[in-house]
Amino acid sequence: MTDATMTKQIVLTRRSPAYWRVTFDHPPLNIFGPETLPQLNEVVTALETDEEVKVVVFDSAVDGFFLTHYNFVAKLEESTRLPPGPTGLQQLPDMLVRLSRAPVVSLVSIRGRATGVGSELALASDMRFASREKAILSQWEVGAALVPGGGPMARLPRLIGRGRALEVLLGADDIRGDVAELYGYVNRALPDAELDAFVDALATRIASFDKQAIVDTKHLVNLNSLPSDAEIAPEWDAFIASLGRPAAQARIRTLFERGFHEPGDVETRLGYHVGLLGVPSTSK
Amino acid sequence: MTDATMTKQIVLTRRSPAYWRVTFDHPPLNIFGPETLPQLNEVVTALETDEEVKVVVFDSAVDGFFLTHYNFVAKLEESTRLPPGPTGLQQLPDMLVRLSRAPVVSLVSIRGRATGVGSELALASDMRFASREKAILSQWEVGAALVPGGGPMARLPRLIGRGRALEVLLGADDIRGDVAELYGYVNRALPDAELDAFVDALATRIASFDKQAIVDTKHLVNLNSLPSDAEIAPEWDAFIASLGRPAAQARIRTLFERGFHEPGDVETRLGYHVGLLGVPSTSK
Amino acid sequence: MTDATMTKQIVLTRRSPAYWRVTFDHPPLNIFGPETLPQLNEVVTALETDEEVKVVVFDSAVDGFFLTHYNFVAKLEESTRLPPGPTGLQQLPDMLVRLSRAPVVSLVSIRGRATGVGSELALASDMRFASREKAILSQWEVGAALVPGGGPMARLPRLIGRGRALEVLLGADDIRGDVAELYGYVNRALPDAELDAFVDALATRIASFDKQAIVDTKHLVNLNSLPSDAEIAPEWDAFIASLGRPAAQARIRTLFERGFHEPGDVETRLGYHVGLLGVPSTSK
Repeated sequence: MTDATMTKQIVLTRRSPAYWRVTFDHPPLNIFGPETLPQLNEVVTALETDEEVKVVVFDSAVDGFFLTHYNFVAKLEESTRLPPGPTGLQQLPDMLVRLSRAPVVSLVSIRGRATGVGSELALASDMRFASREKAILSQWEVGAALVPGGGPMARLPRLIGRGRALEVLLGADDIRGDVAELYGYVNRALPDAELDAFVDALATRIASFDKQAIVDTKHLVNLNSLPSDAEIAPEWDAFIASLGRPAAQARIRTLFERGFHEPGDVETRLGYHVGLLGVPSTSK
Repeated sequence: MTDATMTKQIVLTRRSPAYWRVTFDHPPLNIFGPETLPQLNEVVTALETDEEVKVVVFDSAVDGFFLTHYNFVAKLEESTRLPPGPTGLQQLPDMLVRLSRAPVVSLVSIRGRATGVGSELALASDMRFASREKAILSQWEVGAALVPGGGPMARLPRLIGRGRALEVLLGADDIRGDVAELYGYVNRALPDAELDAFVDALATRIASFDKQAIVDTKHLVNLNSLPSDAEIAPEWDAFIASLGRPAAQARIRTLFERGFHEPGDVETRLGYHVGLLGVPSTSK
Repeated sequence: MTDATMTKQIVLTRRSPAYWRVTFDHPPLNIFGPETLPQLNEVVTALETDEEVKVVVFDSAVDGFFLTHYNFVAKLEESTRLPPGPTGLQQLPDMLVRLSRAPVVSLVSIRGRATGVGSELALASDMRFASREKAILSQWEVGAALVPGGGPMARLPRLIGRGRALEVLLGADDIRGDVAELYGYVNRALPDAELDAFVDALATRIASFDKQAIVDTKHLVNLNSLPSDAEIAPEWDAFIASLGRPAAQARIRTLFERGFHEPGDVETRLGYHVGLLGVPSTSK
């Protein structure tokens, strides 16, 4: 599903014509970058147009990471030069709002980190299920002097209320499965040993239902719950603007010095590490 | 309160002029049908116009069933030929939106199944309390290739967030008291032995308050929380449209072959049984 | 920060230029009255205009009381004669909406009663943390035949859903930390021994972040979550109207006869006592 010059980072498997799995497989960290965008776009387009698919499950093949932050090694122009998507939004928010509206039920099964784009994809999906022991959700961006760009300021307050949304976004810390469940950030946190069977049973169940009833019911929920594209649009611009500011450049540089984008403590405990960026360096 | 040709399915008891109880008593299953509509309409009209009533509790006299799905034995015309209600909506959604706006506090005390209409009535009420052991909430409709018709696509996302609302509606499965509480589908799930005393104490308390303060406060909450009638309206039409489609007719016919509308496993475990309808028949 | 004729009821401490604490210190009950308004206004104005502050924590120095109800000994005119604030709203709702929009992160640390204005200030803040054992939240007003005036009918349904909001407002009872957390009335309830360290760590963390990223992110959340001023405005008028009615006057008089505005059982168990006001007096 990708052209020959790209590494395939997203694997689409059809368990049946009605039940698809989309697996993030970009080791070691499942970082999301400009080269991931067209691959995800292919998946979303297929979900929009296939006549048989009723349910899709997003999961990860990479230990410890569901899907994590944007690629900060890639040149910014690789993201910004991409033309807007069919909605007129930039490619990433475009795909996420299209996923929310797609005539298919999207489930995410979160084991490991869903940070930044990973959390944003989860929030744009229809239902979120998390490993109680192994899921970590986070919008880490403010900790690096960035503004999140993929919709969480529009989606999180509608989902979990303003107070908890502000804690997630402005605390910028790692959120474990049990708190994510308490807050409604995920539908449920399940014991890790039960997560796969639960999600598979729910997806199999939904795949056995009538597509028209699914689509009509989801459409009516969408009318009563989705932010408009106009409410989503400012976030990407704010993200790009924040990325150009010296405060973000300095914090990201420090993160790189400490191991950003490499397997290790900075990536696995990103919430902890962004909490050190504004502290005098002797305190590390 | 009903004309002589109808069996009384809804019993109104005035514990005091300020505190009413409305008990569903249509054994063996508390199925809601076209003949129930005028009875409920009388209750809602009385709640709208009585000058003394401050609080009403809806409960059930039927073991195992709070109030369950629509009557699929009755001819569809018995429902569709009824004229719209005062709001211009069809009779069922009309009564539910009028209940939400009525100048009285409505509590539901859920023991047994609140499926389909039972869940929709609960969602249109002001507060929901459930037996932790014995309450089962569900919007089962999508499992039978139907679209729910009484407002849950408008009400559930506002109450519990889009993700959990989609799980309830598209999973179409039975939701137990503890999950209903976690999701906010009910205000609280209480141990079955404590439910009646809790609800009665709260209703008695509210009945001791000043009606004007109750009405003015509820009105301001309504302005900030209720969907508009225009957001409710499409659901009934979508329900009627879905009911006419072959997929729904086939699934409902299969449900009847397996015991629908009779006391037994299909009615008590409806979530399980709709999960079998789309599966090749050898698997039952 | 207050003029010489006033007792200082609100103490502002700058832990650092970026991290402020605002402590309610008006023993014995932390009652909020017309003389508190200009003091709180000074704090809110400082939060709006200071260029360095990033986070503020509201807490209490009074044992048993975070911040409680309005002062009913003060003449009503002392409140109503105050000119509207910069938003055009009356002074109390004006300050609360300005706090919600201020370019700073506001946390409340609730130990003891947050009743009436105390709850309303908490709801207007960005995040709420409560002592599991010692926090009591309540909107008690309806129990005294009053309509709350400081925004909870607009803010609570958006935060915790219509059903739980109606329970808080129309039940008018004391809500303990664990239920407040379950309902989302607070972000989290923490063991009392852990509350201060948790809130201080979160505030210290946020104070280490970049102010621009905080402000831009909060602004986008605000656009997706705050009620408009027009939705807030009717509450104060409804409160003033209710205060003038005989039902409220009689209930408040009875509360005073039983110990209102004095240390003792009426103030510490206000939820219980408003539940007695409409009951024949022999039952006390």
